[in-house]
Amino acid sequence: MKSFFMRLFLALLLFANAAFASGPLPSWNDTAPKQAIIAFVEKVVKPGSRDFVPVEKRIATFDNDGTLWTEQPLAFQCYFISDRIKALAPKHPEWKDQEPFSSVLKGDMRSALAGGDKALLAMLIATQAEITTDEFEKIVTDWIATARHPKTKKLYTEMVYQPMLELLAYLRANGFKTYIVSGGSVDFMRPWSEKVYGVVPEQVIGSGLKTQFEFRRGNPVIVGLPKLDLIAVGKSKPLGIQSHIGRRPIASFGNSDNDLPMMQWTAAGSGPHFCLYVHHTDAKREWAYDRKSTEPFDKGLDQALAKGWTVVSMKDDWKIVYPFEKK
Amino acid sequence: MKSFFMRLFLALLLFANAAFASGPLPSWNDTAPKQAIIAFVEKVVKPGSRDFVPVEKRIATFDNDGTLWTEQPLAFQCYFISDRIKALAPKHPEWKDQEPFSSVLKGDMRSALAGGDKALLAMLIATQAEITTDEFEKIVTDWIATARHPKTKKLYTEMVYQPMLELLAYLRANGFKTYIVSGGSVDFMRPWSEKVYGVVPEQVIGSGLKTQFEFRRGNPVIVGLPKLDLIAVGKSKPLGIQSHIGRRPIASFGNSDNDLPMMQWTAAGSGPHFCLYVHHTDAKREWAYDRKSTEPFDKGLDQALAKGWTVVSMKDDWKIVYPFEKK
Repeated sequence: MKSFFMRLFLALLLFANAAFASGPLPSWNDTAPKQAIIAFVEKVVKPGSRDFVPVEKRIATFDNDGTLWTEQPLAFQCYFISDRIKALAPKHPEWKDQEPFSSVLKGDMRSALAGGDKALLAMLIATQAEITTDEFEKIVTDWIATARHPKTKKLYTEMVYQPMLELLAYLRANGFKTYIVSGGSVDFMRPWSEKVYGVVPEQVIGSGLKTQFEFRRGNPVIVGLPKLDLIAVGKSKPLGIQSHIGRRPIASFGNSDNDLPMMQWTAAGSGPHFCLYVHHTDAKREWAYDRKSTEPFDKGLDQALAKGWTVVSMKDDWKIVYPFEKK
Repeated sequence: MKSFFMRLFLALLLFANAAFASGPLPSWNDTAPKQAIIAFVEKVVKPGSRDFVPVEKRIATFDNDGTLWTEQPLAFQCYFISDRIKALAPKHPEWKDQEPFSSVLKGDMRSALAGGDKALLAMLIATQAEITTDEFEKIVTDWIATARHPKTKKLYTEMVYQPMLELLAYLRANGFKTYIVSGGSVDFMRPWSEKVYGVVPEQVIGSGLKTQFEFRRGNPVIVGLPKLDLIAVGKSKPLGIQSHIGRRPIASFGNSDNDLPMMQWTAAGSGPHFCLYVHHTDAKREWAYDRKSTEPFDKGLDQALAKGWTVVSMKDDWKIVYPFEKK
């Protein structure tokens, strides 16, 4: 017995040592981005350092689509919307001849989205208005647990970036509050953000419909209205941050021009700050796109290069992309 | 030396014992409300209990005016607005003949407020629009550090309720996240909520103007627009909670009919919940008002009595009202 415990103890020691030796961000190559992240975190948490930031001011904001999980060939919420419209179609025979719904029902989401903001709003309203927040949460929870990506056949929540999961955890371990600030619908992200990213619902900022408080069968409910509240893209990202958090982030993470105002707002703070762009350079393991894509990373890339912000090349800087690549 | 340390040690022991003996909520009389609060907290934090609530779901929401600090003879933000309008008046000669400004300049805030929501919005715009969030924060910070209550001559932040400060701290010590959900302007509360209440800016929900992201002298700024965004009163309180937190509170604290929808939303949760109303019954130490006042507590009082929610009588249930009453 004694030797068993001794061996167990030694095994634990070795394990602890291995965990320690690997250090933070194990799925990142030891290239400039990883070094920049660690250098930033170490200086802001070091008491007495010129760059020390008190724990309550350690706010980090992350875009979601293309920054924490894949957004190709379409933002994943589009597949959710498409599935919902198909499920609701029997009650809406008129949709067969009505855009954007007719395109969705033909399986052509790209044509549906060609209708721009108006089409998107119509689809959001069709899928999210009139029902209660509790009902919508259940619909999302059921969908995300079963729906699969058209190309990889993985669950969508399996297509999150392992290096970014490690980054979120590393920042939190250093006292940061990690927020998601996404153009996606806040009610679409909150049901699973805690489980998948460790980001609690109250730290998710996103787009949404206006809502109404009313009583149904004597019970108070909150119901989506057929009116847009906030679309948290571009210049609305810093506004969402200010309205929701009321402090300026000291670190921001994005992947497209939509995230540029958030980066600029972060970079204009008076203390130390850190801006990082994920650059999709890996056509083999993920997707490769930037300046001229449907999710343009053009002005953002120019500014990042001009200002010396960190730009991560997925191909060069990440050992693996998805958690399922781990042995 | 030895006997000095021994005496120090004994003194520390006695001190620790006294602190322990006094227990939580020392400024509360040992009446039903204190007992109800402690019974609720103890059951939700007890692992294995039928009523156990995991720490991430321990959300408590507090009204501010009349619940955490006094709101008489007027909500304190009115004094701020009045002072700001007076300070800005030299640049607005037209205000002399323009309501609600002319009343404010005559020192008659009550007449100014008689203009209802329209007058209030005009005053919010006059004091908060066009300037940046950073500028506004500085104005509030300077004002709150020096302005004094017309009757007590105390700083406004001295007119917070000691028993409620203890309640906030007690809940946080038991893993609760404490939020403020107030009809007051979020930008008016955030600059001091952390120092005074221990409530960080990101846990303050309130009314506000729409904002805009723009560049001034090359720097990104967020500027108030002359348009209302949210007025967080009545039925908008649960909407603000849902949009900001995305979880239903398990405990809510208010003092007027304006807080009733927040209470109803809390009470309709599927698990254990706690609703508490502060009843202003103490004309001597604070103010006495309820059903027919400018801040009606009428339907709320009826529902609290009908549903068995906790109603605190300031006169009977609180040993002291303000921190400055402490010896």
